[in-house]
Amino acid sequence: MAERLDVPATIGRKRDGDELSSREIRAFFTAYLQGGVAEEQMAAFLMAGVLQGFSADEAVAMTDVAVASGDVVDLSGLAGPTVDKHSTGGVGDTTTLVVAPILAACGLQVAKLSGRGLGHTGGTLDKLEAIPGLGVSLSPDQVTAQVQEIGLAVAAATADVVPLDKRLYALRDVTGTVASPGLIAASIMSKKLAGGASTILLDVKVGDGAFLADPEAGLALARQCVAIGTARDRATGALVTDMSQPLSHAVGNALEVAHAVEVLAGDRSGRFRDLCLELAAAAMQVSGRSADDARRDARDALDSGAAAERLSDLVRAQGGDPAVVETPWEVLPAAPCVGTWQAPPGVVTDIDTRGIGALAGGLGAGRQRRDDVIDPAVGLEVWVGIGSDTAQVEPSVTIHAASDDDLAWARDQLDDLVHVGERADVPPLVHHRLLEATST
Amino acid sequence: MAERLDVPATIGRKRDGDELSSREIRAFFTAYLQGGVAEEQMAAFLMAGVLQGFSADEAVAMTDVAVASGDVVDLSGLAGPTVDKHSTGGVGDTTTLVVAPILAACGLQVAKLSGRGLGHTGGTLDKLEAIPGLGVSLSPDQVTAQVQEIGLAVAAATADVVPLDKRLYALRDVTGTVASPGLIAASIMSKKLAGGASTILLDVKVGDGAFLADPEAGLALARQCVAIGTARDRATGALVTDMSQPLSHAVGNALEVAHAVEVLAGDRSGRFRDLCLELAAAAMQVSGRSADDARRDARDALDSGAAAERLSDLVRAQGGDPAVVETPWEVLPAAPCVGTWQAPPGVVTDIDTRGIGALAGGLGAGRQRRDDVIDPAVGLEVWVGIGSDTAQVEPSVTIHAASDDDLAWARDQLDDLVHVGERADVPPLVHHRLLEATST
Repeated sequence: MAERLDVPATIGRKRDGDELSSREIRAFFTAYLQGGVAEEQMAAFLMAGVLQGFSADEAVAMTDVAVASGDVVDLSGLAGPTVDKHSTGGVGDTTTLVVAPILAACGLQVAKLSGRGLGHTGGTLDKLEAIPGLGVSLSPDQVTAQVQEIGLAVAAATADVVPLDKRLYALRDVTGTVASPGLIAASIMSKKLAGGASTILLDVKVGDGAFLADPEAGLALARQCVAIGTARDRATGALVTDMSQPLSHAVGNALEVAHAVEVLAGDRSGRFRDLCLELAAAAMQVSGRSADDARRDARDALDSGAAAERLSDLVRAQGGDPAVVETPWEVLPAAPCVGTWQAPPGVVTDIDTRGIGALAGGLGAGRQRRDDVIDPAVGLEVWVGIGSDTAQVEPSVTIHAASDDDLAWARDQLDDLVHVGERADVPPLVHHRLLEATST
Repeated sequence: MAERLDVPATIGRKRDGDELSSREIRAFFTAYLQGGVAEEQMAAFLMAGVLQGFSADEAVAMTDVAVASGDVVDLSGLAGPTVDKHSTGGVGDTTTLVVAPILAACGLQVAKLSGRGLGHTGGTLDKLEAIPGLGVSLSPDQVTAQVQEIGLAVAAATADVVPLDKRLYALRDVTGTVASPGLIAASIMSKKLAGGASTILLDVKVGDGAFLADPEAGLALARQCVAIGTARDRATGALVTDMSQPLSHAVGNALEVAHAVEVLAGDRSGRFRDLCLELAAAAMQVSGRSADDARRDARDALDSGAAAERLSDLVRAQGGDPAVVETPWEVLPAAPCVGTWQAPPGVVTDIDTRGIGALAGGLGAGRQRRDDVIDPAVGLEVWVGIGSDTAQVEPSVTIHAASDDDLAWARDQLDDLVHVGERADVPPLVHHRLLEATST
């Protein structure tokens, strides 16, 4: 008898908490792609999985179908290790613009498929597009060619890469089925596997500015992602890092590019620079370098200016003005209205990071809906962090806005977003490292 | 600010195990009726509810929307108590054809909206339609008029009664979301409330021939149904009864009608007759009669022939030949091929009741799909029950089939469906009674 997929029975097994075989998962998702599983059936299946959980093997099988649903980038012709780095998203999270050039300067080949911002989080593509003329729409072949030539490329995933993930995400978004570690891991890793890199480093953000609040939940997601990458023969590692305050001072697209350039020029210290070095070293460690060598090489690339040169190469290759790396504010758009806000005296105990992201979005830096147009010039510079004595940092925040009304509105909002008290618990920058298991 | 339904957030609350307010439930299901909640969103919501449960208040609110979605039968103009009885479905379950006439003979007014059979279970409408000429498509007004005239009517629920339930059932059927006590209770009770009767008696079947196997699960469902009926001011009671063997000897449409007629004529004793008397007495008790009066009145209606006369009235009023009550086999269609099967020597320990129902269906008595055409003549007479000494009952089963091939196939199947051993545990006929709480 020919094997036939019994769709309601398969949903029923997931509802009852059974683990499905890889073959069953592949049959179910392949049928969805081909119209044999209706949207309402997939919605019920996903909800059952959100509540009953997906196993590591189930997540691998879902990832396989997603990767196979579209084009993949073929980096196998390149000499040396290829690397991709992914952040789960946060506020002031511009690490790619620093980490990718460091890695390229250290001899790795960086092919990064990025996304756009939504809600309170920014997106790397939006930040790059703040540089006039710079384009991010590269075909898989163009990505390969650019990496071959200059060692790095940062591009938008085209519609032809993991179309299943796009369709599933649209469904999950309206059916309350986003919050599943297995589904999130499969979604992230399908895009990373399709991106073709042999080394994958994940930056899983936790805290009120991330979609996961709790470090242990972040660790569980990181483990699921690493398991998928490892099962598919990629050297995969992850850091679980703090997003209970904005990562960099800058929140807003041109502001974040300028801040990244300053770090590459050696002009800035702080948590953002520290994390960029951590991530670059971790990626090199996962790709096979010793921990000590990786840390030293990352720092050298930054200090020598080699990384800054690689960002210049990237901007030039993708059509932007490379002068942005030398004199950013002669190239980047500036907001017409700049003002400041000062926190009351005391020690900063808590920053509503999601609120800061939403405030920057409200000024025009982000999107509430996918088709919103963003203003690259606006945003915030949050000079205080958790533990700052506000008397020592003036102003606490610089506001870059499109109008004076927006400035006044932002000041009002900030009164509720930055909390001051007597003493603060400063969170660690990195909560967990998952590096050794996959380094070779 | 105008109140707006946030559909994904509402799904998310049910996913997280929150109880929704009656107002939220009503808003969600009303939006579904009006197109503001998509099928995939309802599917995810239902799956969340299957796994997290629905409260009694949530079930009442869902029932309210379902009732309000269509026409309702108005029996308020009738003198005296009106009564409806509902079985959750089983094998050889023809009680309506006996209970409704008994209740009518006892002065209650019986307005019963029935369903058709699906899968291994039969449906009252299919059984009635085995009587040539008898029609079951009555409008709500025709139901009212017939009850006014002769005291009873058994009709198909028209498409205009609880359309929400029909739409939800079609969705639940393909999305693995049937098995929820709250959804099942709301579905049953919305049809009963729309049917207009002031007294409602539920016969919740448990055992391998029912959709619920376990008596305690049956009790939970019965409690949910009674709570809904009580909340909407109907006198509501329930029996949880055994379906671990076919209820009556007869399994098949004409066979079941003939068997019901024999019981009304006083020609048959056994579990089927006992349960009919239990159900009739329970309905009268719920409607306000004392337990002793109710039992005596039910038995008198049967013994005096008054109930048989009421079945005759019903058949005549709905276009069938009332001679079926006197000489059933001069009216009912008979199968061309009749044969027997004998169990091996011993005591019957177990009957695969679902298998017996499926076997009758396979002979043509039931439907696998909603548009299958049934053969009213075919079926089985299972003369043995759990505890029977097979040497004392010959044949064990009589088979009524459309062909000799079908006869041979049925004999083969029966070898696996009736199990014989040394001694049997005979199940009770009634597991639980929920009558007192709602009797007045």
